[in-house]
Amino acid sequence: MKGFAMLKIGETGWITKDTPACGPLDAICKPLALAPCTSDVHTVWAGAIGDRRDMILGHEAVGEVVEVGSLVRDFKVGDKVLVSAITPDWSSFAAQENYAMHSGGMLSGWKFSNFKDGVFGEYFHVNDADGNLALLPEGMDLGAACMVSDMVPTGFHGAELADIQYGDNVAVIGIGPVGLMGVAAAAIRGAANIYAVGSRKNCADLALEFGATKIVNYREGDIIEQILDLNHGPVDKIIIAGGDNDTFDQAIRMLKPGGKIGNVNYLGEGDYVKIPRVEWGCGMGHKYIAGGLMPGGRARSEKLARLVTANRIHPEKLITHTFHGLENVEPALMLMKDKPKDLIKPLVIID
Amino acid sequence: MKGFAMLKIGETGWITKDTPACGPLDAICKPLALAPCTSDVHTVWAGAIGDRRDMILGHEAVGEVVEVGSLVRDFKVGDKVLVSAITPDWSSFAAQENYAMHSGGMLSGWKFSNFKDGVFGEYFHVNDADGNLALLPEGMDLGAACMVSDMVPTGFHGAELADIQYGDNVAVIGIGPVGLMGVAAAAIRGAANIYAVGSRKNCADLALEFGATKIVNYREGDIIEQILDLNHGPVDKIIIAGGDNDTFDQAIRMLKPGGKIGNVNYLGEGDYVKIPRVEWGCGMGHKYIAGGLMPGGRARSEKLARLVTANRIHPEKLITHTFHGLENVEPALMLMKDKPKDLIKPLVIID
Amino acid sequence: MKGFAMLKIGETGWITKDTPACGPLDAICKPLALAPCTSDVHTVWAGAIGDRRDMILGHEAVGEVVEVGSLVRDFKVGDKVLVSAITPDWSSFAAQENYAMHSGGMLSGWKFSNFKDGVFGEYFHVNDADGNLALLPEGMDLGAACMVSDMVPTGFHGAELADIQYGDNVAVIGIGPVGLMGVAAAAIRGAANIYAVGSRKNCADLALEFGATKIVNYREGDIIEQILDLNHGPVDKIIIAGGDNDTFDQAIRMLKPGGKIGNVNYLGEGDYVKIPRVEWGCGMGHKYIAGGLMPGGRARSEKLARLVTANRIHPEKLITHTFHGLENVEPALMLMKDKPKDLIKPLVIID
Amino acid sequence: MKGFAMLKIGETGWITKDTPACGPLDAICKPLALAPCTSDVHTVWAGAIGDRRDMILGHEAVGEVVEVGSLVRDFKVGDKVLVSAITPDWSSFAAQENYAMHSGGMLSGWKFSNFKDGVFGEYFHVNDADGNLALLPEGMDLGAACMVSDMVPTGFHGAELADIQYGDNVAVIGIGPVGLMGVAAAAIRGAANIYAVGSRKNCADLALEFGATKIVNYREGDIIEQILDLNHGPVDKIIIAGGDNDTFDQAIRMLKPGGKIGNVNYLGEGDYVKIPRVEWGCGMGHKYIAGGLMPGGRARSEKLARLVTANRIHPEKLITHTFHGLENVEPALMLMKDKPKDLIKPLVIID
Repeated sequence: MKGFAMLKIGETGWITKDTPACGPLDAICKPLALAPCTSDVHTVWAGAIGDRRDMILGHEAVGEVVEVGSLVRDFKVGDKVLVSAITPDWSSFAAQENYAMHSGGMLSGWKFSNFKDGVFGEYFHVNDADGNLALLPEGMDLGAACMVSDMVPTGFHGAELADIQYGDNVAVIGIGPVGLMGVAAAAIRGAANIYAVGSRKNCADLALEFGATKIVNYREGDIIEQILDLNHGPVDKIIIAGGDNDTFDQAIRMLKPGGKIGNVNYLGEGDYVKIPRVEWGCGMGHKYIAGGLMPGGRARSEKLARLVTANRIHPEKLITHTFHGLENVEPALMLMKDKPKDLIKPLVIID
Repeated sequence: MKGFAMLKIGETGWITKDTPACGPLDAICKPLALAPCTSDVHTVWAGAIGDRRDMILGHEAVGEVVEVGSLVRDFKVGDKVLVSAITPDWSSFAAQENYAMHSGGMLSGWKFSNFKDGVFGEYFHVNDADGNLALLPEGMDLGAACMVSDMVPTGFHGAELADIQYGDNVAVIGIGPVGLMGVAAAAIRGAANIYAVGSRKNCADLALEFGATKIVNYREGDIIEQILDLNHGPVDKIIIAGGDNDTFDQAIRMLKPGGKIGNVNYLGEGDYVKIPRVEWGCGMGHKYIAGGLMPGGRARSEKLARLVTANRIHPEKLITHTFHGLENVEPALMLMKDKPKDLIKPLVIID
Repeated sequence: MKGFAMLKIGETGWITKDTPACGPLDAICKPLALAPCTSDVHTVWAGAIGDRRDMILGHEAVGEVVEVGSLVRDFKVGDKVLVSAITPDWSSFAAQENYAMHSGGMLSGWKFSNFKDGVFGEYFHVNDADGNLALLPEGMDLGAACMVSDMVPTGFHGAELADIQYGDNVAVIGIGPVGLMGVAAAAIRGAANIYAVGSRKNCADLALEFGATKIVNYREGDIIEQILDLNHGPVDKIIIAGGDNDTFDQAIRMLKPGGKIGNVNYLGEGDYVKIPRVEWGCGMGHKYIAGGLMPGGRARSEKLARLVTANRIHPEKLITHTFHGLENVEPALMLMKDKPKDLIKPLVIID
Repeated sequence: MKGFAMLKIGETGWITKDTPACGPLDAICKPLALAPCTSDVHTVWAGAIGDRRDMILGHEAVGEVVEVGSLVRDFKVGDKVLVSAITPDWSSFAAQENYAMHSGGMLSGWKFSNFKDGVFGEYFHVNDADGNLALLPEGMDLGAACMVSDMVPTGFHGAELADIQYGDNVAVIGIGPVGLMGVAAAAIRGAANIYAVGSRKNCADLALEFGATKIVNYREGDIIEQILDLNHGPVDKIIIAGGDNDTFDQAIRMLKPGGKIGNVNYLGEGDYVKIPRVEWGCGMGHKYIAGGLMPGGRARSEKLARLVTANRIHPEKLITHTFHGLENVEPALMLMKDKPKDLIKPLVIID
């Protein structure tokens, strides 16, 4: 079979591999829709997860089951499925302690295009099909469905980690596709004012549509000052969906005692995340810091998909560019790499 | 001063009393808007809290401060204020353990028209003004503001007690004004499908507007069957905002293991709340049962008011009948007692 | 192979069956130690789970692995293992939502001597070995290890459901082996005073040793009065590990607002669990009611076993009668049925 | 009246002041027992909270009420009382949101010897007596009672922030008096193995007595290696009760994904708390970081005192040196400053 792969750090290309084998618990799927992710870009061009050779890329997909293992109970050939970007081992100690995404080691629930080939091929392999697939709800838009792989659960996990409660005033730092879903997540978890930090117009417009009450543009001044001013003081909760180690420094400075930070941004560089001692209350300010990989798996996908079918969220609006045909995952990824002004998220439909 | 009072069980009337005295921590307010509540009706005509003589009724109000005690720091004469229906003692053991509404004994955070005169007078007394008042946000509709006294916090507490999470399918039993706010609360806490149980058309219409996905009419068949059918199985969470002891029997039967019931309905009659043993998993089904009086106080009022000013909720839509002048609390209460078909909630504006 | 079975309701006996087959995820074990449970007695003589024919009894065991399936990664033939009484399907929707014990339906994580043969045979079958077995820590007493199957996790879950916090005064109703572990669990979760309700001397003595501060004997007067008197008021939390539907009535009456009940007692009879309306605050008293089957699985077993090896708990002290040889599971079960005065828990060591 | 004061940074001495005035909600107490704290040392000699002139030191005390304000309901002259080191404003927004210790601003619930005179005088002032005092339980040792002011609640808060659960393996970094109470707190919250990091023999001995299973001496090698080795991998939870900004670097490196850090150590120096990016899972490892000032107030004191009277904890064992007479707070503080080898905590009894 054909797949679009990372050949080595800095280089991509089409390769041919054997169709993956299906273990007793597994499923083999063919893609119905695919989306590249900023982390694919980091994987290839920044070498974020280290060297990988001839590894098929991609972890965002909607699929159709073409083969199931003998022990799979809930899925059959022909089923159209949501595919979680994170596919944990559900019988592991980590999963039983509620951290399935770290089963097999920290972050190791992330397997596609990390420990095995990803979804940008004619076929892809899903471990523990019963645990990691979910039926595509009838009539669901393929774009929305593809966003349920990663963008929706990652953005929503930011709101969970930040523990948003009714009436909280919330800052969302970063309004790429994950941050935008963080805005939506904050709005439907009971946030009052949502200050969305970003500068690109199309993202800002969608942030407002998804529930932001104000856009804070870092090009127009220090974001700490802007937010403290808008909010008449520090905010209750912060979702971090962009930036770097220094972003935590900013976040702590605009957070009230008892406040919480939920980070879902992958920090790719630097030695230390910066927590400013005095503003952190000299260690005693009850400014909680949490950061985590999205929870994957079937239940998560099903429940987030319900939010789409019940019209609570509209992740299909993230999609600014739509391609058709597997061969177009290449230009779609390049678009993600080049980030033109009008891009939020590309989608490739496999007709 | 003049006030509209319960003279004894079953009888109301206008009485004259001294203006209440202001202790060092207290405030005296005059009402700007008032609303009668079903519990005023129960207090008078069902004798729900026992005999009370010549007690001024009412616990839902927006006010203006006319006097403050010497120790009050954050409010001054002339401030327009949100008034919490529940006005706890914040230095109490119960408050320090997060159950301020039970300070002084179970349910004893409820003081207006229970342990002291209520708000249906020319003036009313607020204990611990700093702890129990909140500034009326500029420009806030008086109807919405008056709903922040009780309808909003009570409905929202139902969603908190039911511990609604992203993607939960939720039943809301009862769609009077509290249940309607429960629907809104469920929707902005991340519920997916919301099954609102009720029969009156205006309430059903508003439930749909507030986020219900389906109306379940108990006149059209057993609600358990209807909900199990609509939801293809038991629901994740249930808010109870109406009914009686038997409602819990229904709720347990339509709730999944691991599900939670949040009750905010005052149960006025009967010896025992009915929990069906087998359907409750013989005591082992992890079907959690919680019920509680709304949390009161300043922080709560401020944070819920933020949801109004941020356009997240629209409690002013509960108000179907608006009167003007203190003298009209009497017909407003009678309306509440008679419950004409087109009533959800009356409001009295004191011009 | 030989096994001691329920032949039908009310009748037990030895039967011969094929050795169970081992699926790819499973393990076959031979028992090293076994213990009968009150629920075995209820299963046979009260027909608590309905009719079962020729079903091998038992769900408390320590084992040695004699065969493993091809997909099992963490266990091998010869491993000595802790066996959880509850053996869920870890890839299920229910498990992913933290209610693994209800995977496959309410209470359906309980499989031994319920949906399949139990452990009272020469061999027994364990589904999902990686998820449901745990290595027996070196040197651990077989009696203590056998109690980690059910008595320890069930008692401890009572304390978790009751959500005991530092300094809580706690009533533990019922001090059979589960209630005794509930006492130990309360003591090492930070309870201050623990009022243990029971009447048998050996249980009372052990309750005091496990951390109870007072024994409340229901033969010496109403337990509500006794506890309210000892505690100078209602208690913070209650673990129910004995009694019946009426026990909840008592519990609610001795619980403070904001208090919580954690039930781990199987309620075998009656239509309705009794929650007294007025004492439950007319639905608004914040007296939380939770009840649930023990969480099973490997992580749970390992973590509770750590408490044994770290000398925090001493479940081996539950064992008052020790037998040797598989054939003695019969008299051990009869002892459990007859409950002589000096019995807490029998153990059968398979030499 | 006479009091022992900080005259300026680096200088202490006895001064004379007016007896403090008693507001309507307040109490004036005379000390029955006093203890100096490391933070008194930091206040004076490190200038930790900035310049203070002629401010009476001390925040750990047992007292006797000599005057009460007109609005105080629960205390009267002659009552012997536990005094919380942290005395919040209970009607504040922060307190209503569960962060009373930050009422009036971050850390501002700490008033004694910070915003007003402390307890090292003939008399001292307690704001909101009903909210911040607790009756001294009859027969309680004055040493234990004095530790309930600060050492016990601070150490216990570390265990709360680290969210210790049954069977967790826990590292406690720092075993001065706060860390020792952290060890005790971990043990009675259900920790299995407790690795206590320290080097002084008397502290190590007491740590073992309080429930530590191993002492890890940083003089004998890298603590990360030692702990990973002892625990066969990273620990579940960490309480930080000593060290500096770099301690977080160590803690993150020995913590498992899903683990939590609870810091109760005041960080006196440096710009940034160090969180190592890679070991923190590049922001996605679910290694939670929490740090906070102890919760103060009456309910907290009462509940922790129950643990003493129920014989769950023995904070009196912290006291290695006992003095008599108010004049001896001076040598007691100097002892705290000089930290001789045999010191854990001095106590001054005012006869």
